Amino acid sequence: MILRIAQIAPLAEAVPPRLYGGTERVIWWLTEALVDQGHDVTLFASGDSVTSARLVPCAETGLRLAGINDHLASLLAMLDRVLGVADQYDILHFHIDFLQFPTFRHLAGKCLTTLHGRQDFPDFWPAYRTFPEMRLVSISGDQRAPIADANFVGTIHHGLPKNLIPFSAGGGDYLAFIGRISPEKRPDRAIEIAKRAKLKLKIAAKVDRADQVYFERQIKPLLDDPLIEFIGEIGDAEKPAFLGGARALLFPIDWPEPFGLVMIEAMAAGTPVIAWRSGSTVEVIEPGRSGFLVDSVDEAVAAVAAVGGVPRAGVRAAFEQRFTADRMARDYVRLYERLIAADKPAMFGKTMIAAA
Amino acid sequence: MILRIAQIAPLAEAVPPRLYGGTERVIWWLTEALVDQGHDVTLFASGDSVTSARLVPCAETGLRLAGINDHLASLLAMLDRVLGVADQYDILHFHIDFLQFPTFRHLAGKCLTTLHGRQDFPDFWPAYRTFPEMRLVSISGDQRAPIADANFVGTIHHGLPKNLIPFSAGGGDYLAFIGRISPEKRPDRAIEIAKRAKLKLKIAAKVDRADQVYFERQIKPLLDDPLIEFIGEIGDAEKPAFLGGARALLFPIDWPEPFGLVMIEAMAAGTPVIAWRSGSTVEVIEPGRSGFLVDSVDEAVAAVAAVGGVPRAGVRAAFEQRFTADRMARDYVRLYERLIAADKPAMFGKTMIAAA
Repeated sequence: MILRIAQIAPLAEAVPPRLYGGTERVIWWLTEALVDQGHDVTLFASGDSVTSARLVPCAETGLRLAGINDHLASLLAMLDRVLGVADQYDILHFHIDFLQFPTFRHLAGKCLTTLHGRQDFPDFWPAYRTFPEMRLVSISGDQRAPIADANFVGTIHHGLPKNLIPFSAGGGDYLAFIGRISPEKRPDRAIEIAKRAKLKLKIAAKVDRADQVYFERQIKPLLDDPLIEFIGEIGDAEKPAFLGGARALLFPIDWPEPFGLVMIEAMAAGTPVIAWRSGSTVEVIEPGRSGFLVDSVDEAVAAVAAVGGVPRAGVRAAFEQRFTADRMARDYVRLYERLIAADKPAMFGKTMIAAA
Repeated sequence: MILRIAQIAPLAEAVPPRLYGGTERVIWWLTEALVDQGHDVTLFASGDSVTSARLVPCAETGLRLAGINDHLASLLAMLDRVLGVADQYDILHFHIDFLQFPTFRHLAGKCLTTLHGRQDFPDFWPAYRTFPEMRLVSISGDQRAPIADANFVGTIHHGLPKNLIPFSAGGGDYLAFIGRISPEKRPDRAIEIAKRAKLKLKIAAKVDRADQVYFERQIKPLLDDPLIEFIGEIGDAEKPAFLGGARALLFPIDWPEPFGLVMIEAMAAGTPVIAWRSGSTVEVIEPGRSGFLVDSVDEAVAAVAAVGGVPRAGVRAAFEQRFTADRMARDYVRLYERLIAADKPAMFGKTMIAAA
């Protein structure tokens, strides 16, 4: 069955994003995969987005680079456009948290919302309580733990295009850290692990303004060591070489990361991941097959010693089996079809009630 | 005619606010005055609000002091409550910018939104364009200049309870500055004026974390002078003495302040205001009667010399005539009645269309 699907993206960044923007990258990959699988897809996103789907531009450019700080008005205007054409779609798939709940609750049966952020702060909870008919998808099982009784209809892990990051059979002699320099990403742990394991560590990371003091005070003093190389921010084009040339990716996070794209990027390159047991890592990493899960620096140092015994081809196989964009899109389509089937019998009655 | 009025407040602070919160203070005064004038008023606000109206608590306490950073979900939940009882009111008066536009557009005829913030950034404009039927009130004429073609139905200046700040016949020998220490409030100008006028300046101001660097680098070095006294943050209880004891209030702002409550607080005490010609000041200050409008430090120094000739009783009279909460409430009631009258004939037809 060919589905008529609307993907509704945040407007902060273009799809795909010019620079950072995990959510926008995932929406891009999902949209491309849905088109590849033959569906009729419309993307509501900023006007500088690039897509194989039909693009409905809802802002001239991504708002962040346009200097718009408050996105609310632009998002409400986008939702008004979506509402005006909602009857042209079988599924309205939202990626902007819960802002659409009030205006789309009468269409709850064809709406699906993927939550992309952490849910352990209470700030968002009133929305889930007030609009319980709105269906949610979590991007990991761990993500939904704080709001387990919200209306989740599935957990769908993210996926990457199969050929985005090619398999690198050889690997290399350094450990890799990639992400933001921030207390929750724990670059200090990565540095300690590398020094104790006596292996080179390459840190590819940007420093946000909010983290500048943390970087200067906590991290910079640790960089003065021949083993530690801080290479700054890298772009998507440099990622395959950076990840493919590493012996292992260190992912020593200290927060409930709802997914963690970099883990599956490393896996695509065949590079095993040494991750702290936190947030989604337990769901993503299969110990011994795609990396190791650890709870301490001691365990991480031991994992670095053991990681040479993890075949890189097996890491890549784990990626291809579980974390491609094609798999992600197929999971979503199955869910869309389930929702459509469930909504059909009740639809006429609901419309009557809404109009009464 | 007794009106059934709903006032919908932000949830950031209680009404009245425990600490700062200009919007919440104005809502408090307006609500009390409407009750005094015999109307049937309901206040949708945080549960720790204190009001003579009927309170519908929409969050346990003010969200900021509760540590909730993102208020969106709580506001949407509040709007859902308001929507559920909308038919019990003649007027729904919103003070939360434009978040209610999508869900209340079918009730546009009984909705009124007072814009409390600056409108010169383009961030909010898509909301006014997308929902042009929603009626707006500006708190000064200047505030609406950047969005002059939005659907404004009136400008209503703020007002204070008549007896909140008593008239101080004597005044005093110092200049007063009150507000935040921030570049747009220009405390540096106030200091320069005082030094050149050889008069004492008392600065009652808080320093937000965002302005800490500005304070340390730009302002602190200027404080080391026997004429300048920095007394830090003061509470509402200390304001009457602080303002009433001053020879004049300096209001040397460098931004389009949409209203500027402190000007009318000073006027209530009988203290004339020397204000930069910017934002709303031209509408609030009557030169020679309640203070002076200036464009430069030179003019401000001259105004300080001239301000002794402004009778304090006349300043107080200007306040009582134009800036009491009673006057503000009467202005709003007149506007409510006009909207209700305009909406009446079309109401039946509109309801039919909405239900079709």
